[in-house]
Amino acid sequence: MAETPKIRFGFIGCAAIARRVSRAVALAPNAVLHAVGSRSIDKARAFAAANGFPAAAKVYGSYEAVLDDPEVDAVYLPLPTSLHVRWAVLAASKKKHVLLEKPVALNVAEFDEIIAACESNGVQLMDGTMWMHHPRTSKMKEFLSDVNRFGQLRSIHSNFTFRASADFLENDIRVKPDLDALGALGDAGWYCLRAILWAANYELPKTVIASRNPERNQVGVLLACGATLYWEDGKAATFYCSFLSNRSTDITALGTKGTLHVHDFVLPYEEKEASFYAATESGVDEAVTKWVPQPTKHIIETDISQVALMVNELARLVTDIKFKKAKPEKKWPTISRKTQLVVDAVKASIDRGFEPVHIQE
Amino acid sequence: MAETPKIRFGFIGCAAIARRVSRAVALAPNAVLHAVGSRSIDKARAFAAANGFPAAAKVYGSYEAVLDDPEVDAVYLPLPTSLHVRWAVLAASKKKHVLLEKPVALNVAEFDEIIAACESNGVQLMDGTMWMHHPRTSKMKEFLSDVNRFGQLRSIHSNFTFRASADFLENDIRVKPDLDALGALGDAGWYCLRAILWAANYELPKTVIASRNPERNQVGVLLACGATLYWEDGKAATFYCSFLSNRSTDITALGTKGTLHVHDFVLPYEEKEASFYAATESGVDEAVTKWVPQPTKHIIETDISQVALMVNELARLVTDIKFKKAKPEKKWPTISRKTQLVVDAVKASIDRGFEPVHIQE
Repeated sequence: MAETPKIRFGFIGCAAIARRVSRAVALAPNAVLHAVGSRSIDKARAFAAANGFPAAAKVYGSYEAVLDDPEVDAVYLPLPTSLHVRWAVLAASKKKHVLLEKPVALNVAEFDEIIAACESNGVQLMDGTMWMHHPRTSKMKEFLSDVNRFGQLRSIHSNFTFRASADFLENDIRVKPDLDALGALGDAGWYCLRAILWAANYELPKTVIASRNPERNQVGVLLACGATLYWEDGKAATFYCSFLSNRSTDITALGTKGTLHVHDFVLPYEEKEASFYAATESGVDEAVTKWVPQPTKHIIETDISQVALMVNELARLVTDIKFKKAKPEKKWPTISRKTQLVVDAVKASIDRGFEPVHIQE
Repeated sequence: MAETPKIRFGFIGCAAIARRVSRAVALAPNAVLHAVGSRSIDKARAFAAANGFPAAAKVYGSYEAVLDDPEVDAVYLPLPTSLHVRWAVLAASKKKHVLLEKPVALNVAEFDEIIAACESNGVQLMDGTMWMHHPRTSKMKEFLSDVNRFGQLRSIHSNFTFRASADFLENDIRVKPDLDALGALGDAGWYCLRAILWAANYELPKTVIASRNPERNQVGVLLACGATLYWEDGKAATFYCSFLSNRSTDITALGTKGTLHVHDFVLPYEEKEASFYAATESGVDEAVTKWVPQPTKHIIETDISQVALMVNELARLVTDIKFKKAKPEKKWPTISRKTQLVVDAVKASIDRGFEPVHIQE
């Protein structure tokens, strides 16, 4: 029996993050770097040479050429958010499966165009939220789902901050209103909101109220913001994201019976292992001198990075579609859309003077 | 030269928490258990016998008798909050120094009566927030105050939750509107708000907005609540307190250059050592595979518990007043008052339908 052919990836653009994804594609057993396109063919050529593209890989001087290459199965789209709808829709119309960087769009209406294009063309859509694919994430989810160890979720807090350089704050696409208009909310905030939705089993909050201290740059792009999210059953979440504070990437989830802490959810401290802290029925000794029991540190070892696992997962789904007549997996665009819906609600609350914004699916 | 006499403590009431404080007084080199009073002399006698009171200690069948004992230097007041103003003012008028359980009062107007009574009688006032006295607390403060390691504070999150038993939720004074009307906010929330003020160098927030999902019992006492606090310089804090979730006691402080995490700030996991995590200029390696540098775990060893250190500190201040003509230390009532001001603001915001409440000192 012949080996199943590898899924051929085409890269649309050469953003910094594309370096990590190209390395992952090069390593993935079920994927291969097939093409890269940039508005500058020299840039594309340099990118291919520097990032492990095989000699036979195609180098194009436009994004269109990648989409017109009939051998490309899937495209990776690390373009500025404002370009997502145009290029993702075009990619889908050319029957290319789409790995789309986050935030997936400037708003959910745009993302719905992308979903519609992918659905009508039968292609897989997945966003680039890498930590979803780390084996630690499913281990943490096991804990949160265990009514005996965690109980019912009552409160979540997540923060993702990093201190951007002067150059970033001046020149990065994420501070440009015409490129990534959602700023820190669409970038770091995306992760916090995904973490919150993940912890809440992707049940959408009913209401979102933005915090009153967003920070913006001179052209109005968000550099830091936060919000409180409310669900119908009484649970709530808070988040804070910023380009202006030291790097932090936390999830704290409080349940009736248990507590989860993780401090490096976006990227683990170490490459080969990742940990989290879980506590169940925490208490103190009778003399109130110490905790009994204390939280437990869980360590998950892995040989494969989360970005490689993400590429593997997309290539696996595409393989099933291409060779086994499977349907695209709806889970991924569904959770992308929910995340975008909450991003939109936070943005709307900020724009409306921190009024409550109700979320409708 | 004769040894300085020990400070003689009288206990007003026999609440559960008084057991811990009495043990600390018994151990303190500069304090001695002198008297205990309860509305029931049998209860007072049993308490004295069970908690290391010396044979010579006085046992009284009323609170007044403790205050009328001329040998009592300082009283410990673990009574329900609704009784604080009456008994603390009376204690001060009898020239007794006051160690007052938190929340210090039902509102700041009441607490101002207590402060006025203590000031006019020249007695020391301190609240029973034990973790303030742990040596870890000053080590963490050193980190937060270091502009090179932490930078400017931008965001704080604190939660204190514990899952109260069915008996607690039915019978504890902290769920009774006539005893501890502030419920979880005055109890667990007090610690979160103190932690936030502590991290912010006791600079009061300008505005407080309560979260919209407080939980109450059938008679209206808060069982869980939270809020967002805003300062004029743009920094903000969130907190969450609850009697209905697993035990958690966290502070996350985000600065421009550094990050602080502590998960057991109210009572350390272990009796003899306590830790926190500090990070400075956290980043990732060039290939984005791990953090460089990673946070550092700081371990502080101690032979003396935080409750004993609290008693020591009060006895030291009282000794200075009694034997060295020192004035009462204003720091302690000042930070108690600020904490109560923010408790009041959260309560007011809840009562006013989650409107912003401005804090005026």
